[in-house]
Amino acid sequence: MNSTIETILNHRSIRSFEEKPLEKETIHTLIEAAQQASTSSYMMAYSIIGITDRKKKEQLHEVSGHPHVLNNGHLFIICADYHRMTYGVSEEAKEDMKANLENSEHLMTAAIDGALAAQNLAIAAESMGLGMCYLGSLRNDISKVDEILNLPEYVSPLFGIAVGVPAENPEKKPRLPQKAVYFENEYQDHEEVIRAFNDKISDYYASRSSNRRTDTWSDQMLRRFRKPIRMDVTEYLHKKGFNKR
Amino acid sequence: MNSTIETILNHRSIRSFEEKPLEKETIHTLIEAAQQASTSSYMMAYSIIGITDRKKKEQLHEVSGHPHVLNNGHLFIICADYHRMTYGVSEEAKEDMKANLENSEHLMTAAIDGALAAQNLAIAAESMGLGMCYLGSLRNDISKVDEILNLPEYVSPLFGIAVGVPAENPEKKPRLPQKAVYFENEYQDHEEVIRAFNDKISDYYASRSSNRRTDTWSDQMLRRFRKPIRMDVTEYLHKKGFNKR
Repeated sequence: MNSTIETILNHRSIRSFEEKPLEKETIHTLIEAAQQASTSSYMMAYSIIGITDRKKKEQLHEVSGHPHVLNNGHLFIICADYHRMTYGVSEEAKEDMKANLENSEHLMTAAIDGALAAQNLAIAAESMGLGMCYLGSLRNDISKVDEILNLPEYVSPLFGIAVGVPAENPEKKPRLPQKAVYFENEYQDHEEVIRAFNDKISDYYASRSSNRRTDTWSDQMLRRFRKPIRMDVTEYLHKKGFNKR
Repeated sequence: MNSTIETILNHRSIRSFEEKPLEKETIHTLIEAAQQASTSSYMMAYSIIGITDRKKKEQLHEVSGHPHVLNNGHLFIICADYHRMTYGVSEEAKEDMKANLENSEHLMTAAIDGALAAQNLAIAAESMGLGMCYLGSLRNDISKVDEILNLPEYVSPLFGIAVGVPAENPEKKPRLPQKAVYFENEYQDHEEVIRAFNDKISDYYASRSSNRRTDTWSDQMLRRFRKPIRMDVTEYLHKKGFNKR
């Protein structure tokens, strides 16, 4: 196994960091790594905003609720971005562009472009011995994050990434068995595999060193899905020009 | 610079592969790498389908139009997947889950989850000396791909990944300058940066070893966005239960 695959397989989300801000050079390298990811039709449909301002960090912390939004080596926010495609474009041409700018296909594409870049950033950070954690929780109040970042039309926050020197060493969290995730040639129903995984995960939760509980993966999902969350994202996206047709 | 960052920065999409199918063990490692990516709320909201059946490859090639869908070491298709969350769930509970299963937030989350996993797979493959190319072109006829893969409710194709031993060594494609992609604390308009990039990219297109042309990035985007593409994705997603509210 080479060291890159070792880094990838060794991933665990880090939620507690030492008080050491990332060097400018490190940030530059992480952005460079992010940008080298593949991008659909050369669109590079994302922007990355680094937060250094303490007041903004506090506001974002209020949205997310997670302490590692406030305390980290650096906080990145990945945004879907088609704004720069409209630079220097006539009003008439912009009207023509709207069918694409505003359809579901292009929302998905920007989310994918942004995530590919983000994962390059994550792996690059981990390869340097840094830790990281994604922050979907910034979408708890997506309009507020938009306001904090002062985002124009056709730009929307996707998620954050907290990066820094790890101050914890959590256990690796089990993943679904390969048989539940990888199929050949067509989709295969895998209810039995999930049932077996629930038994395994229930042992994991009962025996781990902290935050022990009785739980299964399916129960966890059921609880999560039964409580509607972030229903305002739809309306927010429409306001920004996304996902309207 | 460590070897992982070297691998990341060395990325170029490979569209021509030697006739060497990936070993089973390699596929196993690539899926393992994919699965170790971060996942929102432990949802692991994706599935990966590997295509070995020649007839299916031909059908997918027809959708995409790219020869590397047919000729590669292995073809993966990444799908958004909330189907397994509904296993063993009562009709009543499933009704309660629908607000989340069917909102825009969860479409985005699945696309992001799938892309994070995919980029791990991509980097792992490249670290082994393999080449890869993403295939958004499978969304040219997303309903057809759904049919080929026999996808149930709450599962949708996102994109493909062709992997294999490279039979070409293309030039690295320039990326936007960091000043156009990375900002501090809030969004910064960057029309000037894009204008300068257009001059640079116009030199690149005029001087590269193959497929020379006169073009800029902004012109390319304008042409691409003026022609509505994949407008059927919206309706398809609704049919599968995604992005309905």
